[in-house]
Amino acid sequence: MTIQEIQAYLAEFFDSVELVGNGEVKISAPAKIESAGKGEVSFIANEKYLRFLGETKASLVIVHRSVNVEGFVEGRSFLKVTDPYTAFVFVLKKFSRPRIMAAQGIASTVAIGEGVVMGEGVAVGEYAVVGDRCRIGAGTQIGPHAVIMHDVVIGEECTIFPHVVCYDGTIIGRRVVIHAGSVIGADGFGFAPQADGSYVKIPQMGIVEIGDDAEIGANATIDRATMGSTIIGKGVKVDNLVQVAHNCRIGEHTVIAAQAGISGSVTMGRQCMIGGQAGFAGHLELADRTSVAAQAGVSKSFLEPGTALRGYPAQPMRDQLRHEATLRHLGSMKERIDELERRMKKLPEGE
Amino acid sequence: MTIQEIQAYLAEFFDSVELVGNGEVKISAPAKIESAGKGEVSFIANEKYLRFLGETKASLVIVHRSVNVEGFVEGRSFLKVTDPYTAFVFVLKKFSRPRIMAAQGIASTVAIGEGVVMGEGVAVGEYAVVGDRCRIGAGTQIGPHAVIMHDVVIGEECTIFPHVVCYDGTIIGRRVVIHAGSVIGADGFGFAPQADGSYVKIPQMGIVEIGDDAEIGANATIDRATMGSTIIGKGVKVDNLVQVAHNCRIGEHTVIAAQAGISGSVTMGRQCMIGGQAGFAGHLELADRTSVAAQAGVSKSFLEPGTALRGYPAQPMRDQLRHEATLRHLGSMKERIDELERRMKKLPEGE
Amino acid sequence: MTIQEIQAYLAEFFDSVELVGNGEVKISAPAKIESAGKGEVSFIANEKYLRFLGETKASLVIVHRSVNVEGFVEGRSFLKVTDPYTAFVFVLKKFSRPRIMAAQGIASTVAIGEGVVMGEGVAVGEYAVVGDRCRIGAGTQIGPHAVIMHDVVIGEECTIFPHVVCYDGTIIGRRVVIHAGSVIGADGFGFAPQADGSYVKIPQMGIVEIGDDAEIGANATIDRATMGSTIIGKGVKVDNLVQVAHNCRIGEHTVIAAQAGISGSVTMGRQCMIGGQAGFAGHLELADRTSVAAQAGVSKSFLEPGTALRGYPAQPMRDQLRHEATLRHLGSMKERIDELERRMKKLPEGE
Repeated sequence: MTIQEIQAYLAEFFDSVELVGNGEVKISAPAKIESAGKGEVSFIANEKYLRFLGETKASLVIVHRSVNVEGFVEGRSFLKVTDPYTAFVFVLKKFSRPRIMAAQGIASTVAIGEGVVMGEGVAVGEYAVVGDRCRIGAGTQIGPHAVIMHDVVIGEECTIFPHVVCYDGTIIGRRVVIHAGSVIGADGFGFAPQADGSYVKIPQMGIVEIGDDAEIGANATIDRATMGSTIIGKGVKVDNLVQVAHNCRIGEHTVIAAQAGISGSVTMGRQCMIGGQAGFAGHLELADRTSVAAQAGVSKSFLEPGTALRGYPAQPMRDQLRHEATLRHLGSMKERIDELERRMKKLPEGE
Repeated sequence: MTIQEIQAYLAEFFDSVELVGNGEVKISAPAKIESAGKGEVSFIANEKYLRFLGETKASLVIVHRSVNVEGFVEGRSFLKVTDPYTAFVFVLKKFSRPRIMAAQGIASTVAIGEGVVMGEGVAVGEYAVVGDRCRIGAGTQIGPHAVIMHDVVIGEECTIFPHVVCYDGTIIGRRVVIHAGSVIGADGFGFAPQADGSYVKIPQMGIVEIGDDAEIGANATIDRATMGSTIIGKGVKVDNLVQVAHNCRIGEHTVIAAQAGISGSVTMGRQCMIGGQAGFAGHLELADRTSVAAQAGVSKSFLEPGTALRGYPAQPMRDQLRHEATLRHLGSMKERIDELERRMKKLPEGE
Repeated sequence: MTIQEIQAYLAEFFDSVELVGNGEVKISAPAKIESAGKGEVSFIANEKYLRFLGETKASLVIVHRSVNVEGFVEGRSFLKVTDPYTAFVFVLKKFSRPRIMAAQGIASTVAIGEGVVMGEGVAVGEYAVVGDRCRIGAGTQIGPHAVIMHDVVIGEECTIFPHVVCYDGTIIGRRVVIHAGSVIGADGFGFAPQADGSYVKIPQMGIVEIGDDAEIGANATIDRATMGSTIIGKGVKVDNLVQVAHNCRIGEHTVIAAQAGISGSVTMGRQCMIGGQAGFAGHLELADRTSVAAQAGVSKSFLEPGTALRGYPAQPMRDQLRHEATLRHLGSMKERIDELERRMKKLPEGE
């Protein structure tokens, strides 16, 4: 692809894409600014990387339109845009190819149940299992060794990586990506305590529903509802090793980082941002655009949209940061009390 | 099933099951009170749901025997019991069917080693692997793609979901459920540090033993002992993504919520309740009925039965809650010290 | 094996291995000191186990050379060394056998892509999938159901357990062990926020590289880099359910305990020790030999080699322990302030 072609491609997303340099140079791959070489494209979005303007061996660098690139065009070209980071993401997309999972069409070793309906162009990898009455949408890829139990619906153009397990009844939207090893729809953790100290299992009769454009990381677990559905909204992004318990409802475009744990029946709004290893007590509710810091422990509902939470138990960021600042002064507080007591003792009536 | 039949079924568990309404109405499914429809059964166990008495479209509602249902019987019937929640759990059990894992009998694609003994009615799904000398008890279901390595013993009526891996030598009791993706018996994390900074692996020669009626969630890991056995007691319930390290002994009917991590050689008593994401240092001991709050970090043994622990480092609930309450007053403590110093300065001998 | 043979074997690792007792006794297995029986070998490395000197039924006990075993040799023999723990680890290694994964040679059900190169003695278990152009080094074992996507390189004498998934392009060194269910090279968690609240996926075009002698636990996840490589150094040990995000670089012989989570672009030095459930913010750097306590939350870089960190936010151990000690006095600080205020009020000008 030539620099001019990249310029034209970016012009689909940006009002203005200014070229400085030679548009006919061929670009073969994207790369990091510090390691990019001849024929590669990189970007600078952060001032502290501006020193690479004159050092990088990249043939093309995408920069903010305010950057003065004069004096750096010897052997390099530049594209100037309002948002070089996003522009580079689009360049990455242009150069990336869909991942191939050792399968074209439906491998001869796939175990397909009765009454399965597959759309056009579905690819299913070696040894995958597709249970009775499943419906797989056109253009969807299912990796080798995925196990799709019975009565599962998967929409168009999804990518289900190897070793994913979808329990019976799971409903998955369009363009959903599920990475290797994730388990969708296992039983929720529900047991009724008995007088003798043992437990009776509460049957988990519901399902999991995952909205369009969601992405689930590797080895994550999303449990089926006791009744009804555990819901992962449209566009939700769930990272590796995240636990979403039964009956949760995760709002659209919410992002949940690795190893976070969402207890049962939590309702989370749209566009929330949940940090890694954060934990949530059951049955609570978070408003839209709530953000939760990594490792925070959220123990109650927060119903004000846009609240930033942090700490254990989690509280609004400003309160928590003030609290943490005070904590840092704890040693000096103790010394000041010592000193006050010393002085008090010296006073005639201070005893 | 008619309401009368449900009444008769519940009478197996409760001394008194009073019917108010029409016992001949047919019930087809259980449902949540807020979404239940005609022909469905639901329950009310919590006062705040009593408002649904007159709103729900459920044909049958199970309530506490103290609830006055007069005036609500138009189109509805009621069963009155001492514990409507548990009664509903039994109703769920009645309506639930064993999960089918795309296999009846032993699929032709199962790879079976030498000397394997299978009980009557064993079902093994597509592509599962059962290693040499395994013994699988009658009525046990093994899902597609499970890998049971050699010399594993699985008792009667177990359910092993797809993609479970049992390493060699694992011993599993009766009626055990293991959800998809869990790994039983991988090597414990044992490495002996060497003078040059590298490590020598300590061979993990023991096994894992899981007692009757235990249930293990999805993508959990239970490591084999270095020597002897890592023991999961009878009736223990382990949630998704939990880590149980080598040489642990988990007492009967203990419940461990998602993402908790139990370090090596921990001994836990019976009927403990461990919150999500809680962590445990190695080699410690917890008495029977210890409860540990979510995200707590337990750093030492607690030998008094029935202790509730919370916080980091975890301490008895009462101490910890008092500590957390004091923490909340930290800001005002600082202000009070400021004020004391201000006054002290004004005193003649306060300098 | 006789005791004399064990003595000779240990003499390969220790300058002096003194035998007290009968060297011709046959030893069949290693065991724990409290449960060892006739014909078994155990060890005592800790003073509090010295009471077993006269109680154990082990035929051979390895002890420190300073231990006086006179009076205990009736029916027992002893080997005296400078480091009985390490000596016993070597004995374990001697008695342990390589794990067999239900496969000898390449099972007939293995799905092998085009252009695959396998070294001598490679064993691949039932139903494993090896993608196009993979290269598998001599002596490597790949378990049943492992999925090795295309263009993966695995070195000599590795052990890849069942259900491991290696995404395309992964590069693995020699003698690497990866336990069941781990996912190597899934997409990093990178999404560019858009003005409408949705996200555009950032293509993850890099790979994962794992150095020689590394060991990865069960159900761990190591994400591929956005560009370039996520690097797990030589000899690194990663426990179960650990998350290593995209673009991380983990230095040689670093050890990471279960459920720890390393955010994107973290650079960790050599010989670090990371406790269970510890978390790390993105883009930070840790010097060589940094140790991080379990459950700590590391929020910034620590560039001084050998620093021990603890707490949230993590700080050097001494500061954090002092802080925790002060925290424990918080209740008494409050009482002292109460008392000071009471006295102050009594003073004539104290109001």
